[in-house]
Amino acid sequence: MNQALNQDCALIALDWGTSSLRCYRFDRSGQVVERRAHPWGIMNLPAVGHGEDAHAPYRAALEAACGDWLKAAPGAPLIAAGMVGSKQGWREAAYLNVPLAPALIGSQLTEVDTGLGRPLWIVPGLLEAGALPNVMRGEETQVIGALQTRTERELLIGLPGTHSKWVRVIEGRIEHFDTFMTGEVYGALCGHTILGRTMQKPEVADDEAFLRGAGVARTAQGKSGVLANIFSSRTLGLTGELAAEAQPDYLSGLLIGHEIAALKNLYPTTPAIVLIGDPGLCRRYQLALDLYGLGPAAESGAATEAGLWILAQHAGLLA
Amino acid sequence: MNQALNQDCALIALDWGTSSLRCYRFDRSGQVVERRAHPWGIMNLPAVGHGEDAHAPYRAALEAACGDWLKAAPGAPLIAAGMVGSKQGWREAAYLNVPLAPALIGSQLTEVDTGLGRPLWIVPGLLEAGALPNVMRGEETQVIGALQTRTERELLIGLPGTHSKWVRVIEGRIEHFDTFMTGEVYGALCGHTILGRTMQKPEVADDEAFLRGAGVARTAQGKSGVLANIFSSRTLGLTGELAAEAQPDYLSGLLIGHEIAALKNLYPTTPAIVLIGDPGLCRRYQLALDLYGLGPAAESGAATEAGLWILAQHAGLLA
Repeated sequence: MNQALNQDCALIALDWGTSSLRCYRFDRSGQVVERRAHPWGIMNLPAVGHGEDAHAPYRAALEAACGDWLKAAPGAPLIAAGMVGSKQGWREAAYLNVPLAPALIGSQLTEVDTGLGRPLWIVPGLLEAGALPNVMRGEETQVIGALQTRTERELLIGLPGTHSKWVRVIEGRIEHFDTFMTGEVYGALCGHTILGRTMQKPEVADDEAFLRGAGVARTAQGKSGVLANIFSSRTLGLTGELAAEAQPDYLSGLLIGHEIAALKNLYPTTPAIVLIGDPGLCRRYQLALDLYGLGPAAESGAATEAGLWILAQHAGLLA
Repeated sequence: MNQALNQDCALIALDWGTSSLRCYRFDRSGQVVERRAHPWGIMNLPAVGHGEDAHAPYRAALEAACGDWLKAAPGAPLIAAGMVGSKQGWREAAYLNVPLAPALIGSQLTEVDTGLGRPLWIVPGLLEAGALPNVMRGEETQVIGALQTRTERELLIGLPGTHSKWVRVIEGRIEHFDTFMTGEVYGALCGHTILGRTMQKPEVADDEAFLRGAGVARTAQGKSGVLANIFSSRTLGLTGELAAEAQPDYLSGLLIGHEIAALKNLYPTTPAIVLIGDPGLCRRYQLALDLYGLGPAAESGAATEAGLWILAQHAGLLA
């Protein structure tokens, strides 16, 4: 029965991003026994009454999302990763500098008084300083989760998404990472440029169109770069060589192909690759990696949950 | 007096694009004696009554824009360049294939019955076939206008804008051209991605920020490409190294810098460059060209009008 299960609750963990709040309840063996997803990302918190403090919308979201878990397990610690720790979040959890050993991240959590009987411990994001700095927030937790099962000396961990991250890990240390705005640029091109106007959404993913686009970056015309190459999504339509339904996947492939071609530039001797993320998107990245001779990549599932558990361990919350 | 001037009218010429209709009245010496601009681009034509044919909105725009010119000069021919000749325009003026001698374009105009006492002659666009085809419509007229005053054996003509065109001309022939969607991508990034959220519009153009962005493509980090580099507009803001007011010009420079870097790739021995377009935008391209060792470029003003006049000559309309 539920009461028994809840008494066994060892950790309540949150993946709290911009557009969603995902909740995980762990038992003492580190297994997730229940998971929930809510739309209460930090840009979409529940409304609260006037006169409430800045904490109130977060408290309301947390209570609505897992108030029952909190009540049933008064001793279970509470941890969160993601944009909840950004400047626009509940409380800023200052970035840690890369390179670093990920085992150190757990000792640098930021404490927030939730007003709900226990503190929330927020995972810091990572910052790589330099001429063009880079930041991540949330992905560090997935990287930690994925590293748990890897033994390679050198790894390149890819986290495709709105902002794709590629994280270089050497002997267990996070040495460097890059961010490609591929997913968000794709959305903006489809929704807000002339390229979207001739497109029709296909009924099923069109791998042929995707691969045709993905190959562009390695052709002679790839040299003119992505700002030029994307126009071909329109012109191939004008000349009758690319159907309206093929254009979305062609353009997606074209952008992802340029991302993978850049990776090949950055890592002439490619290390082993691990992908973390949405299975459909990982499948597309696998196709593109294969095309550029970098596949197949391993895939790491449930990396967020695994990372949150390990961070709670490192933080001493599970003592 | 006006009547005398109008009797001297040798040509009425239109630059009829997606968002505007520009009209030029020429005297017999080829001088523009009057110019007008209206917002009636082909995507923004005046409303007409129900039951009218598909020509009616074009006829209404033309009459409203220069009905008085037409009436006063019944013998003056009428010519137009731009998107009015696209599939979505008044009548499609089929593309001509590049390479070609621009003097041939004038003999391939498409005739439309305006219903206003004389035909409209529409200039065809240009198509360069290939694995990634390229098209232009309107720019061919500007190129013809600019070529009138040039004597170089080899030229690279740049037409910066929403879609920047770079046209290679050898011994007076149009040999090749590329399209970069730089301007439209910039608009989509500022308006519809996270990069725009931290930006503030500066009071005056910030050349320092522009040049800082323009230089990125030639640094070591430029190797990761434009999809990665653009993220720095946000991260330099997060680290306090780029003010909100500097971000728009930084991002503009970053994109234009990647465009110019790609040109350098495509043309290792750069020919003489001529720029055609909005003076403010040409000034920015001059800054970027200088940075990459390709400046200074010549600038060609009033290229559209000059091109329309020459095309009317080539078409025999001024006989």
